[in-house]
Amino acid sequence: MRRHDIFFTPGPSELYFTVDHHIKNALAMKIASISHRSNEFQEIYKHTSEQLKNLLSLPEGFKIFFLSSATEVWERTAQNLIKDSSLHIVNGAFSKKSYDAALKSGVKNAQMIESEWGAFPNLDSANVEFEPEVINVVYNETSTGVKADMESVYAMKNKYADSLLMVDVVSAAPVIDLDYNIVDSIYFSVQKCFGLPSGLGVWIVNEKCLARGKEIELTGTHVSAYHSLSSMEKQAENYQTPETPNMLGIYLLGRIAQDMNEKSLDLISNETKYKNIIISNAIKASKCLELSVRSEKLRSDTVIVTDIIDEVVFGDLSDELKKRKLVVGSGYGQQKGKQIRIANFPTHSKEHAMMLSDIIEKY
Amino acid sequence: MRRHDIFFTPGPSELYFTVDHHIKNALAMKIASISHRSNEFQEIYKHTSEQLKNLLSLPEGFKIFFLSSATEVWERTAQNLIKDSSLHIVNGAFSKKSYDAALKSGVKNAQMIESEWGAFPNLDSANVEFEPEVINVVYNETSTGVKADMESVYAMKNKYADSLLMVDVVSAAPVIDLDYNIVDSIYFSVQKCFGLPSGLGVWIVNEKCLARGKEIELTGTHVSAYHSLSSMEKQAENYQTPETPNMLGIYLLGRIAQDMNEKSLDLISNETKYKNIIISNAIKASKCLELSVRSEKLRSDTVIVTDIIDEVVFGDLSDELKKRKLVVGSGYGQQKGKQIRIANFPTHSKEHAMMLSDIIEKY
Repeated sequence: MRRHDIFFTPGPSELYFTVDHHIKNALAMKIASISHRSNEFQEIYKHTSEQLKNLLSLPEGFKIFFLSSATEVWERTAQNLIKDSSLHIVNGAFSKKSYDAALKSGVKNAQMIESEWGAFPNLDSANVEFEPEVINVVYNETSTGVKADMESVYAMKNKYADSLLMVDVVSAAPVIDLDYNIVDSIYFSVQKCFGLPSGLGVWIVNEKCLARGKEIELTGTHVSAYHSLSSMEKQAENYQTPETPNMLGIYLLGRIAQDMNEKSLDLISNETKYKNIIISNAIKASKCLELSVRSEKLRSDTVIVTDIIDEVVFGDLSDELKKRKLVVGSGYGQQKGKQIRIANFPTHSKEHAMMLSDIIEKY
Repeated sequence: MRRHDIFFTPGPSELYFTVDHHIKNALAMKIASISHRSNEFQEIYKHTSEQLKNLLSLPEGFKIFFLSSATEVWERTAQNLIKDSSLHIVNGAFSKKSYDAALKSGVKNAQMIESEWGAFPNLDSANVEFEPEVINVVYNETSTGVKADMESVYAMKNKYADSLLMVDVVSAAPVIDLDYNIVDSIYFSVQKCFGLPSGLGVWIVNEKCLARGKEIELTGTHVSAYHSLSSMEKQAENYQTPETPNMLGIYLLGRIAQDMNEKSLDLISNETKYKNIIISNAIKASKCLELSVRSEKLRSDTVIVTDIIDEVVFGDLSDELKKRKLVVGSGYGQQKGKQIRIANFPTHSKEHAMMLSDIIEKY
């Protein structure tokens, strides 16, 4: 049996269009059967690492680690990089979760600067009690479709010379634009823009993060039995991981990153903007939907969130989408039933975006 | 390109022979694109959970949690179940790693009872200073091919009424024989006997473990931001996980468990014993190999470890195996170059076992 739905959900989402081919190839080549301590796996790890560095234009000194999810990265950050104080810029469910993870990990002075959903906090006027060791910001709030105002984040970070700036690029990477002279770490999971099966998180850190991790370990804090930054760094030097990792996931990520490099990130970014305009225009023409993020500057490139302003007409739109087998995401948490979310990921073609837009603008 | 090697390595190993079919089916059904909060995923989780309970004959009250690896389970155990003291029965690399993980997680009184590799510690005469909250034993030491003497473990556990007995069943499950009136928890990763791609760990606990986890959380200990037993239990009640999990892995595990249930565990266990005899007899007839585990009672059913007693003849055997595309595992750690390890997993057919044995007994 074959399912014909096309997933515009903001993650898990439609697989990248080459994943099917790469998985079948991996099965034929028995990638899942090789040892995670073999030269063959080291080559796979190295390939994935190099393709990602290239795709994301990472400067020298940044290291790539493979974890199980972005959720795990929140916990590892609290353990490895924070002694007492962190600052979380919160404007939706996922930015809030990073704050909760710090609290649950025992960070005494976890602080947030919060705005309502659909906006971005005013960082200039924010009151920060404790100098933060880590500042966490979400580049693309998947729950609200808000893109961070990075200039204001950079300005805030400059006030705290010793803080590490971590950017959650889940549902955005590789379509991101960051200044790695200021950003110390990024992290993401692969089931969003990379269009891969879930179960793999990627944590990228610079030398300042590695040094901070070692400093904290030296105080005798138990940072993690296997996913301390130092143990991950040591294994990564040999293109390995402390545990038996999701080898198939790491292999596939390398293949997809290579496909994206061959296509070029410029082209992918331009297509993303183009499709975003098509879909946004359809929403503007729609009788039942309205873009949720009022400020144009704050609208995400990759996750488009809309308010449902006419439930009756929206019911007709939903029926039509179902008939045409186009699956969009529901509103997140408190917004369920009041909003819909549309993913505009690299795997979604211009043709798919048009197909969706043609229907939306009729209702 | 297609690889024709047959992997007799003790994990990662040959995929279960139906995995290829199930992965292609999952792609056609777009399993990786559905939401991990959807009813459809809840059904998948439930199916996997039920098939595993059935396959492993778990009594009522045992809960199944999905983590990223058995390595993660070591850390979560130290965090969730141990305040001060643990006891690790150590007779190889993996049992030692559970001890190391407890130490690295800050367990003050982590203790071990150790034997040389290839043997099992004498538990009667062991000196245990601190009453252990958790006793960890490895059912099948993948590094040495030793099967635990569970009767002696049960006797030891009975001395400590409040201790929890955890059995590492990596590289053994589902071919295990345990008394769940005494055993409180088992855990495994899926890339061994279940023949699945790595990246998924399974932790199964009884109510005593859950109660202990809550007790420790109540003391204010930060057990984990997302993988505390309580948060996993809460999510599992709705057939969900705290993070976006390895959905494809969970789906595949359910399919393989179902295939094994349909074949029946009895048949799988009998086949395992039968293939073990064939391979062991070939090793006994070989001029260059000798079974490493001297005590017949302690020999693992699923991982056969042999000493290399004639390197020249072994060179010829290796060449022949390479020519026939049969891949065996090398000795673990300190035994590399001195031993080989042969996996006898449910996916390895009698025909494959015979093919391998015919070659071994010639050298």
